[in-house]
Amino acid sequence: MHKDFKILLELSKKIQLLTSISRLLEWDQETYMPPEGATVRAEQVELMAELIHQRKTHPNFGEALARLEKAEHELSDNERAALREWKRDYKLALALPPPFVKKFAKVTSESISIWATARKNNDFAHFAPTLKNIISLCKERASFIGFDANPYDALLDTFEPGLTISKVSPLFKELKEGLLPLLKKIQSAPQIKDDFLYGDFSHDEQLDFGNELLKAMGHDSAKGRLDLSTHPFSMAIHPSDSRITTRITAGSFFDCIGAVLHEAGHSLYEMGLLPEYYGSPICEPASYGIHESQSRFWETRIGQSKPFWSHFLPKLQKRFPQLEGVALNDFYRAINRVIPSCTRVEADEVTYSLHVILRYEMERDLISGSLPVDQIPARWNETMQELLGITPPSDAEGCLQDIHWSFGAFGYFPSYTLGNLYASQFFEAFEEAYPDWESRVQKGELTFIREWLNQMIHQHGRVFSAEELVEKVTGKPASAAPYLSYLHRKYNAIYS
Amino acid sequence: MHKDFKILLELSKKIQLLTSISRLLEWDQETYMPPEGATVRAEQVELMAELIHQRKTHPNFGEALARLEKAEHELSDNERAALREWKRDYKLALALPPPFVKKFAKVTSESISIWATARKNNDFAHFAPTLKNIISLCKERASFIGFDANPYDALLDTFEPGLTISKVSPLFKELKEGLLPLLKKIQSAPQIKDDFLYGDFSHDEQLDFGNELLKAMGHDSAKGRLDLSTHPFSMAIHPSDSRITTRITAGSFFDCIGAVLHEAGHSLYEMGLLPEYYGSPICEPASYGIHESQSRFWETRIGQSKPFWSHFLPKLQKRFPQLEGVALNDFYRAINRVIPSCTRVEADEVTYSLHVILRYEMERDLISGSLPVDQIPARWNETMQELLGITPPSDAEGCLQDIHWSFGAFGYFPSYTLGNLYASQFFEAFEEAYPDWESRVQKGELTFIREWLNQMIHQHGRVFSAEELVEKVTGKPASAAPYLSYLHRKYNAIYS
Repeated sequence: MHKDFKILLELSKKIQLLTSISRLLEWDQETYMPPEGATVRAEQVELMAELIHQRKTHPNFGEALARLEKAEHELSDNERAALREWKRDYKLALALPPPFVKKFAKVTSESISIWATARKNNDFAHFAPTLKNIISLCKERASFIGFDANPYDALLDTFEPGLTISKVSPLFKELKEGLLPLLKKIQSAPQIKDDFLYGDFSHDEQLDFGNELLKAMGHDSAKGRLDLSTHPFSMAIHPSDSRITTRITAGSFFDCIGAVLHEAGHSLYEMGLLPEYYGSPICEPASYGIHESQSRFWETRIGQSKPFWSHFLPKLQKRFPQLEGVALNDFYRAINRVIPSCTRVEADEVTYSLHVILRYEMERDLISGSLPVDQIPARWNETMQELLGITPPSDAEGCLQDIHWSFGAFGYFPSYTLGNLYASQFFEAFEEAYPDWESRVQKGELTFIREWLNQMIHQHGRVFSAEELVEKVTGKPASAAPYLSYLHRKYNAIYS
Repeated sequence: MHKDFKILLELSKKIQLLTSISRLLEWDQETYMPPEGATVRAEQVELMAELIHQRKTHPNFGEALARLEKAEHELSDNERAALREWKRDYKLALALPPPFVKKFAKVTSESISIWATARKNNDFAHFAPTLKNIISLCKERASFIGFDANPYDALLDTFEPGLTISKVSPLFKELKEGLLPLLKKIQSAPQIKDDFLYGDFSHDEQLDFGNELLKAMGHDSAKGRLDLSTHPFSMAIHPSDSRITTRITAGSFFDCIGAVLHEAGHSLYEMGLLPEYYGSPICEPASYGIHESQSRFWETRIGQSKPFWSHFLPKLQKRFPQLEGVALNDFYRAINRVIPSCTRVEADEVTYSLHVILRYEMERDLISGSLPVDQIPARWNETMQELLGITPPSDAEGCLQDIHWSFGAFGYFPSYTLGNLYASQFFEAFEEAYPDWESRVQKGELTFIREWLNQMIHQHGRVFSAEELVEKVTGKPASAAPYLSYLHRKYNAIYS
């Protein structure tokens, strides 16, 4: 190993360790922390962020990088990829002046509670001044980072390296044009009965079943855990310590299962990174979009498929006697029921992307300035009507529903939908590799899926960008076509 | 606030925050961490220790200290106490050269598993070479720290500031001389029946009852939690986040309750520190001995008293039908049964100190060199025979039972017994303040005890040394007399 590579690896590993400690602080905060621990927790988190930033921007790091660049020809492919990603990280960390980072953190941390109050009181005007401030800080952030065409591109890039408006817009346009007629058709079909999904389901059994699913998926309990929290999440400390949470919603039990499948997809990705590269970007996930592709792959492509429930429904029925007598096909149709609703996080596969497209277009226009903040509620409601045929009964259930803007995460939303597109592209490659996947899944075999994802995606970490990875796995560039064709096939059958 | 006091407080607060994060890492490791997380956890803990040591020995700290010393006359009493303790901490941190700290950490971390193997295989010879090494490192440590009469004094001082052999030895002599005849008398009395304490007790009910006790004691669940771990412990992140664990031993249910009472005593101490002084030594516990006094106060003086069980036994009987029909006096006598055993952690109130005295005398002689390591097993067994009238069936159950020496904690054991002495002295003052305590406890009132401890002990943090605190609360210097007189009174009655 090159001397300077070793130095960088040491420095980078300490940053990773500090980051992993921060993540544990977050995990604990959402799971077991006593409520009044929140005050000191905020100070702990802030201190760790400061230590991480100091190390990410330390001249030692830059100097070792500069030396290693000169020796690039001596490096292996993986080492060269690590160097490229270290350069990216270093440049990004240095781009933002510390006083700006501090200001951004302060404003966004205050604005979360302002947003929460505004949502509670259904009072967009209460949030508007802060949001204006955040948007101008995001623009400032974009100028520090740098961009070619649009400031929003710089923001997209922080979540999905290399992503630009010019790449997203055509994908999302194609998607929208493909989804709207499908949704129209579904809405004219008779409603699907799903009342058996609601009622009184034992909480312990729900969690036990969650653990049963994890085991079947190959989510090793020696390296992970399942707990409860208000909002489900996945938190990776290390490939050998990757934890997820789910939630139990009184009256509606599929929530818990869906969250387990989704978060386990994230967690299996982190568990599949190569621990021998821990400390380097090789042992980090490629992008938010690729991450989301892994969660959606498991949640929707496997966990909402008929072969999957052909195996698991009888097991479910043993745990929950109220499901006895529900036929597989009725269960399958119920968990895939399409209903336009106001809330993104409750959306089905067909409408989900429309929620994201709405947010993407508004973000883009808020950053460019063509959409003034005060016009958000009106624009939101118009677009909801246009895309989903409904108007939220209040701003609380409309433009105030998501936390993202309040903490300045402009540029994040598109990765949700990119994840769905990537997942569909990966799934086509998976189907080619395993034409018999349905009969295997029907027998309860799931670990071969994990192994395939591991081989094709997880183990590569950040060696390839999201775009490169999609090309490498599928032989094609990112595209909306596989996702659209899957949705049309599946939902035409369900709503025939 | 003086400018330099403010600077020190800022520096010291960051050290506290880092320490509290380390403690959370430890808490997580013993409660919820997936087993394979251990490897990265060790690296996280090591990195935090490094960061803490760097900050504790940073010249900035020393310079601000030197400036503040010159302005000492401008400080309030509390600020002056903080300055004194900061000086102590800084001196202690600087005393040990970083290569020595590293070596000590390495040797002791390796030796823990050597000790564990030796204990497992009942093979003292396997542990002996490492123990010799640790003892010579402890002597080296003592020389770095400095001492007047004996190197062991320097080690005692790190756990119990100001403690020396010349102070401990007379206390322990008095104690031993008072305990031996009492034990002899007890052993000649008829055995107490306690078989109802063993059997199959619902685990959930044990934990629930633990939480019921915590609530009654004023252990605020918004600021603390109760979990399970292999060895019970208390871990304070901050006065508003202080967690304890207990264990459930199959077949023997008083273990769980005793641990809850003991650990809650520790935790209430930490919760009672003044958060407005967080970051300074004022918001830190005075010493290990004072800490132990708080746990033993609750565990033995309250939790093994008759008034306490007069209130709680009926509640216990509702949860555990197998206890129905057990009379209060029989229950009280059973939980206070005295039986010499080989194992310190299972010892009753009368024999516990004898276990500690044995260890203290051996430690003292190991450090002075008058006891060679190879003679440990023989000396151990002789002293066990002399003090407790039993000989351990094996070294595993004898001189290899405790982990302490394997991680170099020479000087720690005495604080266990000091805690009992302090607790008894505090209890005399408490009885004077509340002559009606028995009738109040009998009604289930416990929070007035917490408030008294809070007022007299907790809130002072490190303002007073352990010795000063004992004098301040009781008007008398540290003494074994109150403890002895309590034990004689109590156990003469039980074994009459």
